[in-house]
Amino acid sequence: MSKATFYHAGCPVCQDAEKNMLGFLDPKVDVEVVDFNDDSSRISEAESAGVKSVPALVLNGQPYHINYGASMEEVKNG
Amino acid sequence: MSKATFYHAGCPVCQDAEKNMLGFLDPKVDVEVVDFNDDSSRISEAESAGVKSVPALVLNGQPYHINYGASMEEVKNG
Repeated sequence: MSKATFYHAGCPVCQDAEKNMLGFLDPKVDVEVVDFNDDSSRISEAESAGVKSVPALVLNGQPYHINYGASMEEVKNG
Repeated sequence: MSKATFYHAGCPVCQDAEKNMLGFLDPKVDVEVVDFNDDSSRISEAESAGVKSVPALVLNGQPYHINYGASMEEVKNG
């Protein structure tokens, strides 16, 4: 089973990407959306996966940064 | 029908993204892969859609820049 985790921080770039991109994913993919505003404990997990900015999509462990909303430093200090 | 166009320029970042990301897309999506090395006439079309760097995925007209391979200026001058 393919696993996709979409990490975001509620910024407008993130919300746009979430709404549009997730609709293009295969329905068979196990998609999880993580908003750091709701669960900041997931930040370290995202950084371990190589996430440097949000929004980011981690596909089977490989991070893909999408456009640019905010750096992880901004997420942690925001 | 949803339309996805993946623009790239053959760089390693592009090839990795193409191989991994396209496998996550819904099989019902009409996916087109455009390599500027094969068809430089598509560069202006990509720029019109808002593509500023490759690899980029344009989903129903909305551009999403993925990680970072090369700027469009580098593509044009390369």
